[in-house]
Amino acid sequence: MVATRNPLNIGAAARAMANFGFSRLRVVAPYDVAFREARSAVGAAPLLQAAEDVPLLSDAIADCRLVVGTTSIGHRELQHPIRRLEYGARLIQRALAQAPVALLFGSEKFGLSNDDLSHCHWLMRIPTVDANLSMNLGQAVALCLYELARDPKAALARPEKIRAASAAEQEQVTAMLLDALRQSGYINPRTAGSTEEKVRRLVRRLDIASRDAPVVMGMLRQILWKLKDSK
Amino acid sequence: MVATRNPLNIGAAARAMANFGFSRLRVVAPYDVAFREARSAVGAAPLLQAAEDVPLLSDAIADCRLVVGTTSIGHRELQHPIRRLEYGARLIQRALAQAPVALLFGSEKFGLSNDDLSHCHWLMRIPTVDANLSMNLGQAVALCLYELARDPKAALARPEKIRAASAAEQEQVTAMLLDALRQSGYINPRTAGSTEEKVRRLVRRLDIASRDAPVVMGMLRQILWKLKDSK
Repeated sequence: MVATRNPLNIGAAARAMANFGFSRLRVVAPYDVAFREARSAVGAAPLLQAAEDVPLLSDAIADCRLVVGTTSIGHRELQHPIRRLEYGARLIQRALAQAPVALLFGSEKFGLSNDDLSHCHWLMRIPTVDANLSMNLGQAVALCLYELARDPKAALARPEKIRAASAAEQEQVTAMLLDALRQSGYINPRTAGSTEEKVRRLVRRLDIASRDAPVVMGMLRQILWKLKDSK
Repeated sequence: MVATRNPLNIGAAARAMANFGFSRLRVVAPYDVAFREARSAVGAAPLLQAAEDVPLLSDAIADCRLVVGTTSIGHRELQHPIRRLEYGARLIQRALAQAPVALLFGSEKFGLSNDDLSHCHWLMRIPTVDANLSMNLGQAVALCLYELARDPKAALARPEKIRAASAAEQEQVTAMLLDALRQSGYINPRTAGSTEEKVRRLVRRLDIASRDAPVVMGMLRQILWKLKDSK
């Protein structure tokens, strides 16, 4: 994080790093008070306490083999290739397997300076709908780290399905519901046949889960008991 | 957003919504001061000004066909199916094509209450490395909206490649560099042949971009001029 002004953003960045499994935070020339405040905040995370305060960007990135700047596109004339977050993150993942990578975030107001950018191999942007509307710094850090940690397979994986009630359970529910409807006078004897079929179809459409079937039957049982009792 | 305490988080959520193309923010029973502060903040976004303040969750979600709660897993016993953000977002996208969907965020401290959760069809969680470490609310909103707006194709798309210098350009650079090395006495006449080859291979490895070739040649031309001038 280069020249960060707001201590809340340093704290938010550290929290997002902890959330997604990143550990080395380097803060380059922050507004002194901001950084000290963030670091000494009550319950400051270990990650924040271990953050290194480095005066020069060149020192902060010295051990990295790839340096990627973040930018909101269109805020200046850019001399670098720009990659969208979804794609850039794949490149960074690949590079991380070999050596440390630096991901730079500029100040809230001005982003990275042209001097900062000249240290970068390429730039990455978050694909917002309006390129001129910049993002909140803490949110931008969270999005980049989320995408870096994101598992594309998780988007396809089907979670375990909730087991539907069996036909026998559905028919038990149907029978009890029909009994209650008869007791309460809902069913017209002249159309009883077609009503039964309607109720049966309705119960199927409800798609009751197997674990919910006993609950539904318990409700109906109690209602039936009360209906018969009140006669 | 249900029972939000911190006005900064309402503001951050509104900003993330604008960034990713969402427009309807409903705030359920916020701490009054917080919401008014956020809404009247200097430069409050139109989206925030248009946010609806609704006392009851059931009213806030009344027009929605799917209601999804967000949760950090493991903070209570959950009766709902839980889906990871990557997968849940696909389901929400599909549902959004048909009808409005509500995405609920609870308070900073307690998340959604059991009563709030009972209005949900299912729950969604952000896959953090440590399930017990909750996320910052503004960041959580940003991540969910980013994933909803995310284009999986963008992860695969190759951006346009920077055009490499042609062999002719590379050879021009090589010739000028060799000239400069000769003028400066770098090349030992006895090993000149192998040095030339080394320099040629080095220039190829540099993989100079076509647009950078004139710049490099301009530098070398100036150095050569000075070298010859100083003889």
